[in-house]
Order: sequence, then structure tokens, then C-alpha cells
Amino acid sequence: MKDPRFDIIDVRAGIEEENERYAREVRSYCRTHGLFLINLMGSPGAGKTTLLVRIIDALKAEYRVGVIEADVDADVDARTAADRGALAVQLHTGGSCHMDAAMTLRGLEALEKDAPEVVILENVGNLVCPAEFDVGADLKLMILSVPEGDDKPLKYPLMFTVSECLLINKTDTAPVFDFDFTRLEKNVQALNETAPIFPVSGKTGEGFDAFILWLKERIHEGHRTE
Amino acid sequence: MKDPRFDIIDVRAGIEEENERYAREVRSYCRTHGLFLINLMGSPGAGKTTLLVRIIDALKAEYRVGVIEADVDADVDARTAADRGALAVQLHTGGSCHMDAAMTLRGLEALEKDAPEVVILENVGNLVCPAEFDVGADLKLMILSVPEGDDKPLKYPLMFTVSECLLINKTDTAPVFDFDFTRLEKNVQALNETAPIFPVSGKTGEGFDAFILWLKERIHEGHRTE
Repeated sequence: MKDPRFDIIDVRAGIEEENERYAREVRSYCRTHGLFLINLMGSPGAGKTTLLVRIIDALKAEYRVGVIEADVDADVDARTAADRGALAVQLHTGGSCHMDAAMTLRGLEALEKDAPEVVILENVGNLVCPAEFDVGADLKLMILSVPEGDDKPLKYPLMFTVSECLLINKTDTAPVFDFDFTRLEKNVQALNETAPIFPVSGKTGEGFDAFILWLKERIHEGHRTE
Repeated sequence: MKDPRFDIIDVRAGIEEENERYAREVRSYCRTHGLFLINLMGSPGAGKTTLLVRIIDALKAEYRVGVIEADVDADVDARTAADRGALAVQLHTGGSCHMDAAMTLRGLEALEKDAPEVVILENVGNLVCPAEFDVGADLKLMILSVPEGDDKPLKYPLMFTVSECLLINKTDTAPVFDFDFTRLEKNVQALNETAPIFPVSGKTGEGFDAFILWLKERIHEGHRTE
């Protein structure tokens, strides 16, 4: 029941609508340009850049791969991506806690001259805000690392709800951190029944083949339906 | 040196400029309406609402006090403020991680009919994003609670740099948490030489008198210079 002593105002509506409008524009851009866009999200230190390098290496024989790096003010990650032969653009978010669809569109346009077929957007390291902003990607890919703990779905439910694929990184450290994969799976599935979960180790490479196989199938489907 | 393999694009500039424009509008609004605006920031659970109630109680004999509550979708805090006799408005930020100046202006306009003389904006519980968005307040007030640890200035430097007054809450729990006030002060002063630090206990009320005395002086000065 409305308390007559104060008003309730929804200040977010305008921002959300504008972001949704840009997300539709990103989707339409991707269809027009035959491009599969991946939104890669995770905490700082979860291993996003390591994973990125592995994806570039696995795809570059088959596709022109582009990378949009979002960072406060560094360009380390764009440099890493360029070193692996990917087309890259570095977006300076000036301290912003997430990428939105309008920023993503600018990144895609900056890569346009090289006509990438797969673009990976490495989002800002944050489990809260990136989950709230749909950038218009074909795949929301989340990476959680073992040291962060198997209880993270309880603390950041939205991120685990919106993600369409979950990588559990640094599996080699599981014994040290008392990380329980069964508990993690239970916590994830309570929020998200469809996202596959792949345990991987960025260090040893273990588990990546299964993920890459799945990813290639998704990209293939995405390009086919364009 | 610019790496020729990729572009660097500053996607945040537009957002920052727009926020600064609104922050100027908020400042001008406060001057025109004889209003002192406090931006209250801190982690979830730091004790922002308890502090808010104590500020309302200390000021309400002297000033008409208004409260802008920013929350994902609840109205508990606006209800608490209204219970203490404050004019209140609840802003639903729909999951946004911070208040910006445009949202603040909408909150002020919603309170305008009751002509408040002091308005406290209770920002979203977050130590990162609120620090980056100037809402145009006369005073940036930060609350850190003892259980969060004395190392927080090292992890969230911007918040401690921009704050103009720091309350250390839950001092009654210091022995349990091995919180070192000297270390905290050293960490804060490396970032911010001017902000006073007041240790308080929301539970026992200890330390609040000194803070309220300082706050009343600041509000008095603020109103005098209008």
C-alpha cells in the first residue's frame, strides 16, 4: 500500500529505455554485418583476459576475431588481444562500472573497417552493474574463478541469472579454496536452469576443449540464422 | 606511445559532461531554494539509515529536513525517515549502482512543495560508483563501519578522496574486528588531508554529539553564503 507521506519515483526508467533502444540497435548492427557478439563478464582477476586469449587462438583460423576492451584508463588488454592477432579497440570508460549498449555500438563501429565476424567485448570487472545492462550481445558469457567461492550465485544472483554460459576458472586451485562444484552447480541451477557450466583451468588449459566445442556450435548457429 | 594496431576511444566523456551539467543545475537549485544538500554514502550495512535518523532528530527542531532515498525497489528507508518527521521521497533506481545528478534533481523537485532547508540524499550502498558521480551536494558525507576493516581506503581510494567528512560507525565492535583507528587515519590522510574523522556508535550514540556540532556549523555556513 502506498504510504501517503512520501512519493515513490522511478528514476531509472529513462536510462533503461535508452539502453534497450541501443541494445536493439546493436542487435540489428550485428545481423547486418554478419557478426556474433560475446559479452564477457566476471570479477577483476577472474581470468577474463586469459580466457579471451584462448578464445582468439581457438577461433582465429576460422573467423576474423575482434575484441572490444573496456577499461578505466589502461590499454594492456587491447595490446594482449592485438598480440594474438585479433582486431582490437580499447574503450576508456573513465571509471564507469559497466559497459552499456551505446558504448558497445561505438566499439563495434570502430572495428567496422576490418569486418570482424566474431567480436568479444571484455566488460568491466564487476559482478553487479554489467549484469543490469544488456549490451545487445548474442552470448552472455560469465567467468567465475574458484578463489571467489562457490557461494557467489547467492550474493550476485542477477549475474548468474542473465548469463548464458558459465566458466569456472582456476579449477587447479580448488583443493586450496574448499570450493564445492556440486554446491556451486546447485546454487547456479536455482537461478538458471539452462546455462551450461564448464570447469576450466586457464593455467593448464584443462577443460577448454569442451567449452570451445560448445562455443563454436553457438557461433555457427548464430551466423546461420542471420 | 600509441599502439598503431588499435584505437583508444573515450566513451565516458559524454556521460561525465552530462552529469557535470546536472550537478551545476543541482547547485544552482540549492542556492535558489536556500537548501543544504548532503550526499550520504557508504557500503550496504554500514549504518547509513541509522545515521540518517540521528541527523534528522538532531536537526528537525531547527530546520525542515528532507530525505531522498535511493533504493533498488524498496521503500523501507523513506518510511523510516517519514516516521522521524522528515519530508521524504523514495527514488527507485531499478538496480542502478549509484545516484547521478539528474536523479538527484528529480528528488529535490519532488520535495519542493514542502520547502526543505536541509536535504539528505541516502545514496545506493556501494563504495565505487557513487564516488564517481558528483550529485551537486554541499557536503559529501561517508560512513565506514568497523566490521568493513581499516584497509578500506586502500581498496576504494576514490571514495575516501572525494568525501568531505568521514564517520567511523560501530566503534563498539572495534575489539572484535581488530580495527586499528591509527592505521585507518593514516590510510585516509594519505588520500585526504582535510576531511575530519568522527568515530561514532549508532548503537550507543557515542561520538555523535561532536559530529552533529560540526555538521550544524557546516550547514550554518552553507546557508549564510547563499
